[in-house]
Amino acid sequence: MKNKVPLSKSITFLMLLILVGTGPAFGQSTTDIPHEDALKAVLAAKKKAEQLDVLVNIAVVDAGANLKAFVRMDGSYLGSIDVAIKKAKTSRYFDINTGDLGKLTQPGGIIYNIELSNDGLVTFPGGVPIKNEAGKIIGAIGVSGGTIEQDHDIATVGAMAILD
Amino acid sequence: MKNKVPLSKSITFLMLLILVGTGPAFGQSTTDIPHEDALKAVLAAKKKAEQLDVLVNIAVVDAGANLKAFVRMDGSYLGSIDVAIKKAKTSRYFDINTGDLGKLTQPGGIIYNIELSNDGLVTFPGGVPIKNEAGKIIGAIGVSGGTIEQDHDIATVGAMAILD
Amino acid sequence: MKNKVPLSKSITFLMLLILVGTGPAFGQSTTDIPHEDALKAVLAAKKKAEQLDVLVNIAVVDAGANLKAFVRMDGSYLGSIDVAIKKAKTSRYFDINTGDLGKLTQPGGIIYNIELSNDGLVTFPGGVPIKNEAGKIIGAIGVSGGTIEQDHDIATVGAMAILD
Amino acid sequence: MKNKVPLSKSITFLMLLILVGTGPAFGQSTTDIPHEDALKAVLAAKKKAEQLDVLVNIAVVDAGANLKAFVRMDGSYLGSIDVAIKKAKTSRYFDINTGDLGKLTQPGGIIYNIELSNDGLVTFPGGVPIKNEAGKIIGAIGVSGGTIEQDHDIATVGAMAILD
Repeated sequence: MKNKVPLSKSITFLMLLILVGTGPAFGQSTTDIPHEDALKAVLAAKKKAEQLDVLVNIAVVDAGANLKAFVRMDGSYLGSIDVAIKKAKTSRYFDINTGDLGKLTQPGGIIYNIELSNDGLVTFPGGVPIKNEAGKIIGAIGVSGGTIEQDHDIATVGAMAILD
Repeated sequence: MKNKVPLSKSITFLMLLILVGTGPAFGQSTTDIPHEDALKAVLAAKKKAEQLDVLVNIAVVDAGANLKAFVRMDGSYLGSIDVAIKKAKTSRYFDINTGDLGKLTQPGGIIYNIELSNDGLVTFPGGVPIKNEAGKIIGAIGVSGGTIEQDHDIATVGAMAILD
Repeated sequence: MKNKVPLSKSITFLMLLILVGTGPAFGQSTTDIPHEDALKAVLAAKKKAEQLDVLVNIAVVDAGANLKAFVRMDGSYLGSIDVAIKKAKTSRYFDINTGDLGKLTQPGGIIYNIELSNDGLVTFPGGVPIKNEAGKIIGAIGVSGGTIEQDHDIATVGAMAILD
Repeated sequence: MKNKVPLSKSITFLMLLILVGTGPAFGQSTTDIPHEDALKAVLAAKKKAEQLDVLVNIAVVDAGANLKAFVRMDGSYLGSIDVAIKKAKTSRYFDINTGDLGKLTQPGGIIYNIELSNDGLVTFPGGVPIKNEAGKIIGAIGVSGGTIEQDHDIATVGAMAILD
C-alpha cells in the first residue's frame, strides 16, 4: 500500500523514540510493583503463615517505599502492624533483607544505631526486597508476628509469588 | 459408649460456661472485623473505583482503629495513602461518617479544629463505619483519590460488601 | 551479511520486549526526574529569585516525593526550609499547584484541613509539578521566602527550565 | 571642600562605631557558609562519588545546622536521604566527624545512645565539619550511600572544596 510508512522509517522513529525516551527531559525510567502483584504477594504470604499456623501482619511497599498493600491476620500482635510496615520500608530503603542489615547495626557494627534514622528502621529478619523477572527491585515485603525465621520465610514466599 | 460424660452433666457445665463467659473476669466482649471481611471490603471498594474509573487508596481499620487491610491502586495520588488511613481511623474514632464530622469542625463549629488531635484527623467525606449484620460497628473504611462524593460512595460500597 | 539477524525477527523481538516489559511480573514503568535536571531547576529558580531580588529556599522532589535537590539562599528565612520542602512534596502528593489545592482547603472547602495529613502539607502558592516533554509529571518544585506570587513565579521558572 | 565633615569629627564617629559594633546590642558574630560554597561542596562531593562509581546522597548544613544544599544521585538508596542530612546535622551539632562521635556512643561508652537525642543522630562515618580558611567551622557535610569509608572520603573532598 502506498500510504504506508516505509519500514525503515518506522524503525528509525522507534529507535529515536527509545533514545529520546531515555534523554534528560523525559526523566529516568523506574519500575514499580503493580497493586495486583502487591495483593498477590500479601495473599501468598498469608497462605504460608496459615500453613505454619502463625499469626502475622504483612505489608508491601512500592519502589518508592510507599505502602501498597497490607493485611493484618486476626489475633496477630497489635505492635506488629508498625513493625511489618517498617520492615518493608527498611528493606526498600536499602535494597536488602532486613536481617542482613541488622548484622551491621549491632554495637561495634559499621552502621550502629542506623535504626534511629528515617523515622525508625527495623533491622531484624522479616523484610525482603521484591524483584521482577529481570531481577530489578520493584518493592519490598515486610512480615511481623512469628519468630524471625518464620517472618523471613513468609516474606520470602510473598516476594517470590509475583513471579508465578 | 460407656465412658461418655452423662448428658445432664455436660449441659450444666455448658450453662456455667455461658454465665461465667459474660462476667467481669472475662472482660468486655467486643466484635471485630475479621481480616477476610476487611479484604472483601477493600476489593469491593476497588471494583467500584474501577467502575467509576477513578484511582484511589483504600484502608480498613478494625474495631480498635488499627490498620487491618489496605491497597493502593496504581497511579493514585501519593498523598492519598495517609488520607485514606486517616479517614478510616477518624471514622472509627468517633463512629461517624467523616463528612458528618466535618460539619462540626468548621470555624465556629462545636468541635472546631479537632483535626489537630490524634496525630491528625481527616474530616471530609470518604470515611465510613463498617457495621455487622446486627448493626454493630466492627471497623471502618477510608477512601481517598477521587472527588469527595466518589470517595464516600466507594467507601460505602466497601462497607456494605461484608454483608453479602 | 549472512550472520545478521533478519530484520523481521529483530522487530518481532523488539515488539515482544516492549509488550513483555509492561507485563505484571516486570512491574509498572514510571518516570523520574534525574538529579541533573533537579539541579538545573534549582539553579534556574535561584537565578530568577536573584533577578527579583528576593531571598528564597528552593526544593525539588522526585516522582516519589523524595527530596532530590535543595538550596537555601543566604539570609533567607529559616522557617522557609521546611515550607519549601513541604510545598514540593504537597505538589507531587496531589499533582497540583499548591495554590490551587489551597482554594479547596479553606473553611467550608471540600477538603478543609487536609493540611494535617502527610505530616503537614503546605497549600498556598509556591509548589509546582515538574513535567517532562511528554507532559508527564516526574517531580515537583517548592519555593518559599518571597511573596506567594514571587514564590509561585520562581517555582514555575524552575519547573520549566528542565525543558530547555 | 567646604562642606566636608571635619576630620576630627569623622574619627570620633568611626571610633564610636567600632566600639558599639562589638557591644552587646550588635550580638555575637558568627560565620556561616554561603550557599555558593554549599553548592560547591555538594558538586565536588558528587564528582568524587562519580569517580568512585558509588551512588550517594549529599547534604550540607550551615553554621546553624540548617539544611543549606542537597543533592540525591539517581538510583541512590532512598534511606540515605535522611541519613545524609542527619550526618551533616550531627557533625555540626557537636563539631566533630560523625565517625569519631560513634566511638563514644557504643555500649559502655561515655555518651551511650546519644543517637536518641535531637530527633535522631547518625554517628558512623560520613559527616564532616566544613571549615573556612581561618579554620573556623561554618557548616558541615553529610554523605550516605557508599561504604562508610567511601562516604567519609567523599564528605571530606566536599568539605575541602570550598578552600580552592
